[in-house]
Amino acid sequence: MDRFQLLSVLDQVRAGALSPADAALQIGDLPYAEVAHAVGSSVIDHHRELRTGIPELVFGAGKTAEQIVAALRELVRVSGAGLATRVDPIKAAAVRVLAPEVTVHELARIVTLGTPAARSWCARIAVVCAGTSDLPVAEEAALVAESLGAQVVRISDVGVAGLHRLLARLTDIRSAGVVIAVAGMEAALPSVLGGLIDCPLIAVPTSVGYGVSVDGLVALGAMLTSCAPGITVVNIDNGVGAAVAAVKIARLAVRS
Amino acid sequence: MDRFQLLSVLDQVRAGALSPADAALQIGDLPYAEVAHAVGSSVIDHHRELRTGIPELVFGAGKTAEQIVAALRELVRVSGAGLATRVDPIKAAAVRVLAPEVTVHELARIVTLGTPAARSWCARIAVVCAGTSDLPVAEEAALVAESLGAQVVRISDVGVAGLHRLLARLTDIRSAGVVIAVAGMEAALPSVLGGLIDCPLIAVPTSVGYGVSVDGLVALGAMLTSCAPGITVVNIDNGVGAAVAAVKIARLAVRS
Amino acid sequence: MDRFQLLSVLDQVRAGALSPADAALQIGDLPYAEVAHAVGSSVIDHHRELRTGIPELVFGAGKTAEQIVAALRELVRVSGAGLATRVDPIKAAAVRVLAPEVTVHELARIVTLGTPAARSWCARIAVVCAGTSDLPVAEEAALVAESLGAQVVRISDVGVAGLHRLLARLTDIRSAGVVIAVAGMEAALPSVLGGLIDCPLIAVPTSVGYGVSVDGLVALGAMLTSCAPGITVVNIDNGVGAAVAAVKIARLAVRS
Amino acid sequence: MDRFQLLSVLDQVRAGALSPADAALQIGDLPYAEVAHAVGSSVIDHHRELRTGIPELVFGAGKTAEQIVAALRELVRVSGAGLATRVDPIKAAAVRVLAPEVTVHELARIVTLGTPAARSWCARIAVVCAGTSDLPVAEEAALVAESLGAQVVRISDVGVAGLHRLLARLTDIRSAGVVIAVAGMEAALPSVLGGLIDCPLIAVPTSVGYGVSVDGLVALGAMLTSCAPGITVVNIDNGVGAAVAAVKIARLAVRS
Amino acid sequence: MDRFQLLSVLDQVRAGALSPADAALQIGDLPYAEVAHAVGSSVIDHHRELRTGIPELVFGAGKTAEQIVAALRELVRVSGAGLATRVDPIKAAAVRVLAPEVTVHELARIVTLGTPAARSWCARIAVVCAGTSDLPVAEEAALVAESLGAQVVRISDVGVAGLHRLLARLTDIRSAGVVIAVAGMEAALPSVLGGLIDCPLIAVPTSVGYGVSVDGLVALGAMLTSCAPGITVVNIDNGVGAAVAAVKIARLAVRS
Amino acid sequence: MDRFQLLSVLDQVRAGALSPADAALQIGDLPYAEVAHAVGSSVIDHHRELRTGIPELVFGAGKTAEQIVAALRELVRVSGAGLATRVDPIKAAAVRVLAPEVTVHELARIVTLGTPAARSWCARIAVVCAGTSDLPVAEEAALVAESLGAQVVRISDVGVAGLHRLLARLTDIRSAGVVIAVAGMEAALPSVLGGLIDCPLIAVPTSVGYGVSVDGLVALGAMLTSCAPGITVVNIDNGVGAAVAAVKIARLAVRS
Amino acid sequence: MDRFQLLSVLDQVRAGALSPADAALQIGDLPYAEVAHAVGSSVIDHHRELRTGIPELVFGAGKTAEQIVAALRELVRVSGAGLATRVDPIKAAAVRVLAPEVTVHELARIVTLGTPAARSWCARIAVVCAGTSDLPVAEEAALVAESLGAQVVRISDVGVAGLHRLLARLTDIRSAGVVIAVAGMEAALPSVLGGLIDCPLIAVPTSVGYGVSVDGLVALGAMLTSCAPGITVVNIDNGVGAAVAAVKIARLAVRS
Amino acid sequence: MDRFQLLSVLDQVRAGALSPADAALQIGDLPYAEVAHAVGSSVIDHHRELRTGIPELVFGAGKTAEQIVAALRELVRVSGAGLATRVDPIKAAAVRVLAPEVTVHELARIVTLGTPAARSWCARIAVVCAGTSDLPVAEEAALVAESLGAQVVRISDVGVAGLHRLLARLTDIRSAGVVIAVAGMEAALPSVLGGLIDCPLIAVPTSVGYGVSVDGLVALGAMLTSCAPGITVVNIDNGVGAAVAAVKIARLAVRS
Repeated sequence: MDRFQLLSVLDQVRAGALSPADAALQIGDLPYAEVAHAVGSSVIDHHRELRTGIPELVFGAGKTAEQIVAALRELVRVSGAGLATRVDPIKAAAVRVLAPEVTVHELARIVTLGTPAARSWCARIAVVCAGTSDLPVAEEAALVAESLGAQVVRISDVGVAGLHRLLARLTDIRSAGVVIAVAGMEAALPSVLGGLIDCPLIAVPTSVGYGVSVDGLVALGAMLTSCAPGITVVNIDNGVGAAVAAVKIARLAVRS
Repeated sequence: MDRFQLLSVLDQVRAGALSPADAALQIGDLPYAEVAHAVGSSVIDHHRELRTGIPELVFGAGKTAEQIVAALRELVRVSGAGLATRVDPIKAAAVRVLAPEVTVHELARIVTLGTPAARSWCARIAVVCAGTSDLPVAEEAALVAESLGAQVVRISDVGVAGLHRLLARLTDIRSAGVVIAVAGMEAALPSVLGGLIDCPLIAVPTSVGYGVSVDGLVALGAMLTSCAPGITVVNIDNGVGAAVAAVKIARLAVRS
Repeated sequence: MDRFQLLSVLDQVRAGALSPADAALQIGDLPYAEVAHAVGSSVIDHHRELRTGIPELVFGAGKTAEQIVAALRELVRVSGAGLATRVDPIKAAAVRVLAPEVTVHELARIVTLGTPAARSWCARIAVVCAGTSDLPVAEEAALVAESLGAQVVRISDVGVAGLHRLLARLTDIRSAGVVIAVAGMEAALPSVLGGLIDCPLIAVPTSVGYGVSVDGLVALGAMLTSCAPGITVVNIDNGVGAAVAAVKIARLAVRS
Repeated sequence: MDRFQLLSVLDQVRAGALSPADAALQIGDLPYAEVAHAVGSSVIDHHRELRTGIPELVFGAGKTAEQIVAALRELVRVSGAGLATRVDPIKAAAVRVLAPEVTVHELARIVTLGTPAARSWCARIAVVCAGTSDLPVAEEAALVAESLGAQVVRISDVGVAGLHRLLARLTDIRSAGVVIAVAGMEAALPSVLGGLIDCPLIAVPTSVGYGVSVDGLVALGAMLTSCAPGITVVNIDNGVGAAVAAVKIARLAVRS
Repeated sequence: MDRFQLLSVLDQVRAGALSPADAALQIGDLPYAEVAHAVGSSVIDHHRELRTGIPELVFGAGKTAEQIVAALRELVRVSGAGLATRVDPIKAAAVRVLAPEVTVHELARIVTLGTPAARSWCARIAVVCAGTSDLPVAEEAALVAESLGAQVVRISDVGVAGLHRLLARLTDIRSAGVVIAVAGMEAALPSVLGGLIDCPLIAVPTSVGYGVSVDGLVALGAMLTSCAPGITVVNIDNGVGAAVAAVKIARLAVRS
Repeated sequence: MDRFQLLSVLDQVRAGALSPADAALQIGDLPYAEVAHAVGSSVIDHHRELRTGIPELVFGAGKTAEQIVAALRELVRVSGAGLATRVDPIKAAAVRVLAPEVTVHELARIVTLGTPAARSWCARIAVVCAGTSDLPVAEEAALVAESLGAQVVRISDVGVAGLHRLLARLTDIRSAGVVIAVAGMEAALPSVLGGLIDCPLIAVPTSVGYGVSVDGLVALGAMLTSCAPGITVVNIDNGVGAAVAAVKIARLAVRS
Repeated sequence: MDRFQLLSVLDQVRAGALSPADAALQIGDLPYAEVAHAVGSSVIDHHRELRTGIPELVFGAGKTAEQIVAALRELVRVSGAGLATRVDPIKAAAVRVLAPEVTVHELARIVTLGTPAARSWCARIAVVCAGTSDLPVAEEAALVAESLGAQVVRISDVGVAGLHRLLARLTDIRSAGVVIAVAGMEAALPSVLGGLIDCPLIAVPTSVGYGVSVDGLVALGAMLTSCAPGITVVNIDNGVGAAVAAVKIARLAVRS
Repeated sequence: MDRFQLLSVLDQVRAGALSPADAALQIGDLPYAEVAHAVGSSVIDHHRELRTGIPELVFGAGKTAEQIVAALRELVRVSGAGLATRVDPIKAAAVRVLAPEVTVHELARIVTLGTPAARSWCARIAVVCAGTSDLPVAEEAALVAESLGAQVVRISDVGVAGLHRLLARLTDIRSAGVVIAVAGMEAALPSVLGGLIDCPLIAVPTSVGYGVSVDGLVALGAMLTSCAPGITVVNIDNGVGAAVAAVKIARLAVRS
């Protein structure tokens, strides 16, 4: 309930069209009434996009195929489209059996249903990826950004051990309004990139590697301590978070 | 050396105005020539703002008062202003002895010299701070953002243990184009804020606390794993990094 | 053997009804005699409820189906009811084959046998859960609390990213004498809740998440360092421990 | 603003005594008005006791002597008493210079001002301490509990390496409604105690020790994984948190 | 080659019975000649018992069934008996197919072949175990100690949460010359035991538990920081190491 | 493009044989043109050996059998040979189905295709291995070194618990120009070796062990803190890295 | 109170010489009566040597000079001698002012008072030390062992980087009944020693080093994972614990 | 004693010039005789250079000024020169008072005495340093390498955030036979460098930074997991170790 709705309720009270008791009920309860729609044991927050600009995305890792399908259908029912992340191949197959109309994006481990509504213009986002093992996380970021209305340019396999590959793609990268850099192991890519571009740069550490880097903590630490100032970081393997942040930023950009 | 400069060199070669050997020297060396100016044992990268949009900032923690003064003066000489961070009170006093014209910002542990050049317009930045112990980091972020041309609104002591304090300031926070949230201990502030606003949100963990939170790792972890998607994070106590990222984002915003 | 029993033994010695040697045996051994009853390789401590107010609960994780059934039957034999936790689906199926009369609670991974004796009155316990992935731990806490005689109110999916959902349920939560808050990831729920209620609050971190939160250590750390004073914490995923602590507290409450 | 206040505002609107616009302002803003009173750079939340049952306590570690005195005086002005924790000897001396009327509790590192108001009855709290090095934390817990109206019994130096010392004090411990157990190093005290008593038990790990126990993490881990179910734990060295939790519990107890 | 053998070689040189070159060869090489006998890709060190008092034990975890059988047979060939640890059930079945004459100890995950030679007298060893989940490690220690000639008394399920169970078995424990205490989770058993007995006490942490104790590090830390001085510790789950240490100690004991 | 090629391009410009625009294209793009050849989603850097002296090696852990075969064939096409590491038995079988002409090295988990070109002379490399469980890592190092043109001497099972075994092989070890020492658990081998030899020594920690050593961090830490100065270390289980470093060093050696 | 004393009390009851009430008092309280003697805020457990064979030792780190002196004097009063550990130079000076008759052992940071009583025979203990920086811990172990009646042989600076130094002292080391090995950094000494001797070996990690070894965790880990079986370990820098364990073992040895 | 010396002793025995007993003494003891010369509580190993090619270097961190001076003088007495590392300014001043003829290298925290002997030729070593805060570690490496006879080229302030600075110095770096790369924070320098040069590359992490990088573990981890194969790593801040390794490698190089 925003201030406009509140004034309208108060006007009805002054006009006698609404009793104070009923108004109290509406004022106290309306902001939360009907917001949530139970789907199995989860709850869909249809007002989230109104508050935060981003619709609810289904995190598939802790859910059954049935729960994922129910959540996606509820999202489609209200907004026309739904997207679930972290759906592994076996679960994706089960989802497809329950809902043959879904689209499964294997590399990104994403399942989508319906067609996203057109969203407000936003600047181009570059998803830059250090190695081929980092591709699933990069693709998760790219697909989520596209589902939120962004145009995405994908640039892969530009790790710093072959610096020429990165330098050769700089023009493409500089054409974007926001850059997402995805890297595992020692994650030097954002540091090098951060010294070469002037737009916002979001770094995503991945859990690619072995030995001391097996869980992505070294990549996370390296990104947080980059000598190139102004790089921001999300959780390990969190392509979704990077995409959401990038879209929020890209929407600020002046169209030119 | 951009493509335009390169063509100009080649034209001179064709015209015989430049020997191939001299051209080779320029092509090989020009992009890096004269870029660095040695100040004592450190090197000032005057081209950084051209490449990344942000001038070099002096990290004072590992430098002597003499080195800080020399670096600030070199920055002032070329660009009119310099700013050094992490200058503790004793070192700040020594800096003031050497350069009485500096301004010392005690809370933020920042020393500035000269007047920053006017910079391109950028949206307002809100620096939101959970507790009074987090203020030095918040103020570091605020001052750096201001030195880079941003208008900053400071909102302090709005930790989630007294939720009403945060909700009372939401209108102020929502008026900004970018929000920096500074919090230590369990750092719940960004999660709550992330569910209430729609602009980009940068979280800064602080090393405030004791026991398991003494070094800020819990706050960092909490911010990285926030259930509110799209929050990005910088290193512990890294007010500078948050400010630089926020300014880069705020510059994208449409003036309205 | 309490002081009353000791005096009785000594009186018998003075009366010559008991030899000093036999008395020594009783005094030395009685407090522990017959306390333990071997069930396969484990030992059931039937006196535990007398000492601590809580009967022995079977921790199923390190036991075979046979051992679990034997332990439950021994508990039923003496006290009428038994409860085993951490029984995964496959083991639960095996338990049901051996003892078809058991009740299996799938979500909570709990198996029960018999009917718990009526226990002393205790105040209502609210089990508040941040996300749907945290439900198994929350349900473990709820079922154990109920088996110990508590009335439980379950409140789910009230994570702080949608603050309105939590605020809408505050009246229900405040109606309880003790609150258990279950949350994974950054676990901001107890901090927000702790600033809004005045009854004892027990926080249970869960191992829900990925990246830096994969094992629940961030949630644990966040709960321990909450800025809301007076929150107490149990081990990661330890719904049982939270329930036992809550019941001990709720028994203290004045019926009103 | 509770439902009663809301109805009153709405009645005034219906009566024409209040314009809808002014009512909207009150409804939106009133709940947070006048709650906070700024004292220098910190903010005192005088409504905290109304919401949570516990008044604001001043955490002295990150504050100057001036800030501590100002905060204590503001608390005394409104509620008659103030208490600051983590005030080391040098800072305490400075506080005493500024406010000679304070009482300094050296062992507990606590400074108090004024006389706490009488508070509602609560059951006796036993503060049990494993070793002499743990005494500062235990005393912090004891003094805070007393300031909140509890009667405290202190039992010290009953570590499990001399089990007889603990068993000799069991009657005293069992006389309490709630027990706080303070221990460092391997922190076995709560486990032993947890098997012997039936009232709520709060464990406080301390940072006492060296080698692998230097920072209290082993003690914390041992308390969280105790084989005695139902022990709850607070942050390392957090005597205040244990006291607040214990008082909240003890207030529930039936007077008998 | 000891000094006696060396003098004998030198005597032969003086007598001309051995050339200096051949003597040099013997002096340089003899100490290592024939010590190792290759069995497939592993090497059996038959001289280990001569040097250290303990024969080589086969660590089965990183070996195939074929390698284990070959190693056991080589040990039997020379010394009459062989013992392999960390042989899981599937590997044990494969071993039994290859060598039907082996004895498989399921609980302890041990496979033996042949009959150990009689060894020098040693004092009785008590293996005390906190919980039933710790039994595999305790049994590994007991069986290895027995294979090395020790008489072992097994005492199980005497965790400190039911202190009476431990106190009831103190006489048995005190009858031993050396005590091995096996415990997981918070591992308070050695601390309590260490204050009650006067013989050497070796503590073995186990990886039993969940949450913060899942890998045994809390148990290890608790044992290392025990307030009962003089407890020594081995690696997590290292029943073999505890047994070897205990036997070395027990051999020192005076028979009485 | 080296300076020689650059001068040649500039000469053509002066001679009018090349337009400035075409020259700019060559100068800007040539160093990176045609360097990469896409193989499925990965990219082969054929210029790597020119820059770093070592050809691209295929890291098989994050790749499918199809990707591995395609990468190997591309490497064979250009340079005559390809080598993939971290190919587990199941994936190796799949690779063999796709490309029956590959050679599978089971112990080392390596697959090779084609015949490596003769490379420049390099000194002998000794691969010294502490225990049989460390052999896969040692063999990975040995095979990679051989594929890069080195002569390798393998010395196994010379852990320091049987010091005579190591001392007996010292002559062999000293005959090498570079030594690679592979060890897990406490990894004392490099420290002992480092005090006995004068050539460069590269230490490889392995993840062999259990308890505190399960992931190789203890071995890594021990190697980094060796009291024998001048030992350098690679990542846990990184046989490839050790081999590459050793070959680069061995190529420096004077043939004698 | 042992069984003999208990029978005696019961006999007095039967004989009417003791009332049942008084007997109850004695039986219930005697084992703990008068055991503790308060010295300031610490408690001296004079019965500890009776129970565990080792008298109470004063841990000086958390005590004031006054507390240390009082504790030592109380120990001297009853048993003739007292020993305090971890007394740094400044505190030792203060102790000497208060009690000029103390003996200060600077290197070991130990202060002693009085003359220890003769104790039962025990075998010789060798304290073997890897580097000169480890000497304070080694000397603490040696002095404590001597104060408990052991004859100690000190062997220093025999780190494995100079293996000949260790081998040259093997005869001395083998002459002991028990060996304590003290080492920091990578702590390879116990592994090498463990393969060369047959008596019990206790390893003490020290916090000597920098980088990854700064706090002794690498040394601790290396000792726990030694490939030489049967080594037991104490906490980092815990010379006292090693000495107590060694003396308990050495007392078992047959005099020969 | 090498084989040549052994044959000489045996020849004397055969010739009757030496008794077998005396020969036994020499053979058994000679290798260790006179090797060590005690200087106060430390021991100088004059034979180390013979065995390992590198003389003993004095690690000053755990030594007094007196001990450092004594060790340096003993080294000068035998070999003409001595070098001590980790000598902080206060200790260096004390050393200079005791031995005015020392040379103090402030930045590198090194003290030298005497003139190193000429050593065998070795290739040039490049010490490349990422930031000015890393200079002390870089300078320690450079000075130690020079003291061991190497020619060193120092290249500073070439962190990857200003990539042009590094590329501008590539020719200098490529002129070296071995490269040492020193970097703190995210330590991306070695990864970038490793893809550009073909000589051996040793990486030294430094403890420069704050937040997650305060102790150098991120830099260490990043270097160990570099995507550029063949980089080897030493302990954090271990300039000495890198220098020793580099010199051993550079001595192998062919003079050209």
